[in-house]
Amino acid sequence: MSESAPARRAGRRMVLLTEGSCDPVTAKTASCLLRYCPDEVVAVLDGTATGRTAADILGVGGAIPVIDRLAAAPGATELVIGIAPPGGRVPAAWRPVILEALARGMTVVSGLHDFLADDPELVAAATRHGGRIVDVRRNDERDVANRLGLREACTRLLTIGTDCSIGKMVAAVELTRALQRRRVDAKFIATGQTGIMVEGDGCPIDRVISDFVNGAVEKLVLAHQHHDVLVVEGQATITHPRYSAVSLGLLHGAQPHGMILVHEPGRMHHGGLPHVALPSLQRTIAAYEHMAEFSGGSQVVAVALNTRLLDADTAARERRRIGAELGLPVADPIRDGSDDLVDAVERFRAARAVAATTEAPR
Amino acid sequence: MSESAPARRAGRRMVLLTEGSCDPVTAKTASCLLRYCPDEVVAVLDGTATGRTAADILGVGGAIPVIDRLAAAPGATELVIGIAPPGGRVPAAWRPVILEALARGMTVVSGLHDFLADDPELVAAATRHGGRIVDVRRNDERDVANRLGLREACTRLLTIGTDCSIGKMVAAVELTRALQRRRVDAKFIATGQTGIMVEGDGCPIDRVISDFVNGAVEKLVLAHQHHDVLVVEGQATITHPRYSAVSLGLLHGAQPHGMILVHEPGRMHHGGLPHVALPSLQRTIAAYEHMAEFSGGSQVVAVALNTRLLDADTAARERRRIGAELGLPVADPIRDGSDDLVDAVERFRAARAVAATTEAPR
Repeated sequence: MSESAPARRAGRRMVLLTEGSCDPVTAKTASCLLRYCPDEVVAVLDGTATGRTAADILGVGGAIPVIDRLAAAPGATELVIGIAPPGGRVPAAWRPVILEALARGMTVVSGLHDFLADDPELVAAATRHGGRIVDVRRNDERDVANRLGLREACTRLLTIGTDCSIGKMVAAVELTRALQRRRVDAKFIATGQTGIMVEGDGCPIDRVISDFVNGAVEKLVLAHQHHDVLVVEGQATITHPRYSAVSLGLLHGAQPHGMILVHEPGRMHHGGLPHVALPSLQRTIAAYEHMAEFSGGSQVVAVALNTRLLDADTAARERRRIGAELGLPVADPIRDGSDDLVDAVERFRAARAVAATTEAPR
Repeated sequence: MSESAPARRAGRRMVLLTEGSCDPVTAKTASCLLRYCPDEVVAVLDGTATGRTAADILGVGGAIPVIDRLAAAPGATELVIGIAPPGGRVPAAWRPVILEALARGMTVVSGLHDFLADDPELVAAATRHGGRIVDVRRNDERDVANRLGLREACTRLLTIGTDCSIGKMVAAVELTRALQRRRVDAKFIATGQTGIMVEGDGCPIDRVISDFVNGAVEKLVLAHQHHDVLVVEGQATITHPRYSAVSLGLLHGAQPHGMILVHEPGRMHHGGLPHVALPSLQRTIAAYEHMAEFSGGSQVVAVALNTRLLDADTAARERRRIGAELGLPVADPIRDGSDDLVDAVERFRAARAVAATTEAPR
């Protein structure tokens, strides 16, 4: 009845609950499911925008309708909490619709820090009606990292960023899918609740006990290194006042060979901390490459921009400017596709392959 | 009956359980309680060394007896699990004595990752006989760091190290007590289970959910910054393959002005990871000072050596060599006292005070 297993359920038909929080950052879970699993979404539930479409309110999801009650989506099997509020608590106003979903025998999927399955009223409703609760962040990780058994022929990539909620998951999924379209055996390694809902597996590392973060990430890598390329979803940034612990554990657990830096031009401060300026891209790169020296060494091989707030001309100009400043390939995956990103990764893989034939393994 | 509150209980009379694990590293909880709270320890419980003294088997604790059963310490009020095993699980062979302690109405204090209060048999025994279970690592930290409200006139110091179990807690307690002897209003900020048992307050940050590590540490600093100096207990190291997440969250949450680097001369590899070489002191310092740039800046102001495995001559030679190499004051607190450490800190505080009158606050 209650579970943490993130396994993707075959034939799921999702309603995404965003009620009143439909900006693309707050509703990033909903946005990403609309972007990457559109065939499995039947509606967005938001009484403040009834009758409009997902594309109208979130910029993605095409004609998927916005509805104001579950009864308007009779075939739905899952209600997904579509926002990631700071602090991770479910808004009180959403309890009635969660209870209604359970009463309909639906599965309610939540990525919040507060587990729905710890709420006696919700558990009772699920038990009574045959509904299910899936808390994607629930985990019992207790393994430490060991730095043993890694397959160096599998190229490990990590998306990193200058801040939270900046596009690291999007860049990782876009890159993985673009590699797959070029027939590369690539796998997206989800490390956050939204990525897990998209991919159907992964580990919610920001919810892991701090002693076991590095170990949980290393375990993900070991489990999937039969693929040729792993694209690990980054979290926050190692310069972040709040979440740097998560980001460094991820770096040292994933032990990436290469990193993709994600940035949003124009973002000046850490989200929610207007008094803390964002470090420059150069400082962020230097910090990551320095700390990666302690996990085998790594370099930033490309930059992915998130230009959602810019017009096309400004976006193109920023892209050129940043490329010239950093001397790195710069892509804008949502606006212009991921070809440049894939080219950079393929050049990096080729250089690694050459190095492997001429040097001792690292 | 079961609690996490680490508050030091007045009049506690402790038996330290180390049964068969009496080397000073594995039994570091016992060693530190013997060193810093000797008046509150009535016995060490270890059937493999009955009749000897604490000093015989752990090198500290003087004539405190080693006993083989609780009945030999009839006045004891607490049984403390005295070891910190990797993985954090209580050895099965210890259950009978834990049950016996609860049956005697004693308090059982554990710093393990596995909570005794999650064990139905132990809880039943406590309930039946009026015993108590205190799981020092239990916490419900859910606050994020905000970088607001820090009192810059309070000097924040952090002990850092080149590895785990190397003496960061010892250096922090020794420095705090030495400052207090010079009438400085200093406070030890415990961040691990042993430190919490010694000090009676603190937060077990390696057991905090990773998203909230930075916040839990910042909260400790905010709660105690009415003191003139805070000496924050370090954990692991930001270069550690397993635990770097904990260490970086601690650095960015504590936002130290100065750091004390703890090292054990002769240690070549990370504990438990013989295939992972320890970085040099220089590389460790550079990594910490680089990452501290993102929390206001910090510098290493002194080094504290742990020379327990060296003879006096070698220890003195290492101390001189490292001082010359790094250009930093080097102390050997357990062997030679903390005067050099305190002098270095007092010079650092004086320089900060001068800077505060001539510069804008950082």
